[in-house]
Amino acid sequence: MNHQWRIAARPQGRAKESDFSWTEEQVPALADGQIRVRILYLSLDPTNRFWMEPVDGYLPALPLGVVMRGITLGVVEESRNAGFAPGDIVHGLGGWQEIYAGDAAGWTKLPRIPGIPLTAFFGAMGHIGFTAYFGLFDIGQPKPGETLVVSAAAGAVGSIAGQMGNIAGCRVVGIVGSDEKCEWITRDLGFDEAINYRTEKIAKGLARTCPNGIDIDFENVGGEIMDAVLARINLNARIVLCGLISQYNASEPVPGPYNFNNILVRRGRVQGFIVLDYAARFPEAAAKIVPWLMAGKLKYRIDVVDGLRNAPTAMNKLFDGTNQGKLLVKVSEE
Amino acid sequence: MNHQWRIAARPQGRAKESDFSWTEEQVPALADGQIRVRILYLSLDPTNRFWMEPVDGYLPALPLGVVMRGITLGVVEESRNAGFAPGDIVHGLGGWQEIYAGDAAGWTKLPRIPGIPLTAFFGAMGHIGFTAYFGLFDIGQPKPGETLVVSAAAGAVGSIAGQMGNIAGCRVVGIVGSDEKCEWITRDLGFDEAINYRTEKIAKGLARTCPNGIDIDFENVGGEIMDAVLARINLNARIVLCGLISQYNASEPVPGPYNFNNILVRRGRVQGFIVLDYAARFPEAAAKIVPWLMAGKLKYRIDVVDGLRNAPTAMNKLFDGTNQGKLLVKVSEE
Repeated sequence: MNHQWRIAARPQGRAKESDFSWTEEQVPALADGQIRVRILYLSLDPTNRFWMEPVDGYLPALPLGVVMRGITLGVVEESRNAGFAPGDIVHGLGGWQEIYAGDAAGWTKLPRIPGIPLTAFFGAMGHIGFTAYFGLFDIGQPKPGETLVVSAAAGAVGSIAGQMGNIAGCRVVGIVGSDEKCEWITRDLGFDEAINYRTEKIAKGLARTCPNGIDIDFENVGGEIMDAVLARINLNARIVLCGLISQYNASEPVPGPYNFNNILVRRGRVQGFIVLDYAARFPEAAAKIVPWLMAGKLKYRIDVVDGLRNAPTAMNKLFDGTNQGKLLVKVSEE
Repeated sequence: MNHQWRIAARPQGRAKESDFSWTEEQVPALADGQIRVRILYLSLDPTNRFWMEPVDGYLPALPLGVVMRGITLGVVEESRNAGFAPGDIVHGLGGWQEIYAGDAAGWTKLPRIPGIPLTAFFGAMGHIGFTAYFGLFDIGQPKPGETLVVSAAAGAVGSIAGQMGNIAGCRVVGIVGSDEKCEWITRDLGFDEAINYRTEKIAKGLARTCPNGIDIDFENVGGEIMDAVLARINLNARIVLCGLISQYNASEPVPGPYNFNNILVRRGRVQGFIVLDYAARFPEAAAKIVPWLMAGKLKYRIDVVDGLRNAPTAMNKLFDGTNQGKLLVKVSEE
């Protein structure tokens, strides 16, 4: 039997457990070319909230009643596909369920790397690390000595992007929501400066930490935070538009940044991106990231919530900032 | 004696004549390296309003009391600079005055091209045409068959950008504010479609004229118009951020586009620019534009207001849309 979370209603604001339904069904027999995957970990990402809306985004909208979409890591238990064998560790859109049984398209085999735990694929090696890598290097185009600001800097992507900024020789400033996170990113991750937006006005914090302006904004948040950053951008600044988490739960239309005109005045470039567009270059990113991981240059925290049953409530930790690192649901034992 | 318009006050909303003061002064004797220019034409551009604000933009803020900044074309009457001789036609930031006497830095000599009137330098050959050229080709990266939307399409830059879109093989849709302008851009300039935003909802007009979405937005306006465009952008759309005329007279902070998140979802790129940054490449643009002009592929209208005295009131024609083509003030006879 396979347990699943299905979308039962369109959330108003944050998703509630009642916006999902908990269902149980027989695992279907595999057709030719298909695989059956026992899911070990489900990744919870801010974009999940976005996927619950009835609008096509970078992926098609999900109709009510289907299994909630989710990024997962699992182990192949049965395969009718020549590319996969039982025991393979795989990564793909397995959904909010215990067992995925279906087409193998979109699934990737992951190597077992001695000394690197499976959860690292959610820390720096998988979609999180690749998002940081392509966003920072391809779009941000960092040059040594430039000032990089990262919002949601203790978040999964932000914490990696900031460390990659260090590697690129930038002065790195992180914006976070607690003193504990300030300490973590500056002491453990090597950020040059941190701003706790709950205790210091962002504009003031940016004036304090970015005396020479901002060359790159790795934007995960939007809203007031992005506005304050845009007010201080330098000529030819790059705004890496990775996420807008401040508005994913909005039920009213959200205004764009009030300092939008500064993009014109400072000749800034805003570039939206989705890591899926870079799939063909994932090996390039992995080849860079593995040595950085081995050398201890990329640290990360994993926040594991136990049991698929808790996925709907756990998702909101992303929006109130109470997760301590990359948020995962452990669905079954490795 | 030299008559001048100086900035007397910071305007609230649109500039009034009383925000300027009309002064008269002796023309100073030239120092070594300087030139004296009799101004023939003063260009009125939306950005002029922006220059009256007490904030540094792409050019430094002007203090109260100085001669208003303005783009001008004139004839050298006296030169103590080896690069200029009496009789030369020159182009530069001469300001809102009859005579410029000062450093030659920033002034450019213009060729006299048989069959092309001096006012063409404001139509398609000078800063207007170069703005359209670098915005469309460098930032917009047009490909044949793509859909290009131009806002303020009957304006000086917009009308040229749309015609260059034709040359690039795009389907070109213009947004304007009157039926007369609709007719002009479609019948005389070769735009494929036009939308009169005063009589048709922009979203509806874009749905009608851009059934396959929008690949390039040549943005001159901002506000509601840009928002409607962003709602229909295709994957990897380019937003050429040339101007935001809808907000230059605002006295309150203006929200950015409500559909800003679509830049993320559709992986769009927004790039602000200022033609001055491309100065080193002006000859390249001119080499392209002259043959297009000769071949009748770039048409333009010039709206000449007679007399420097009328500059302050004439400037507002740009904001109520009553100018018929590129707005110039004739300061003295050729």
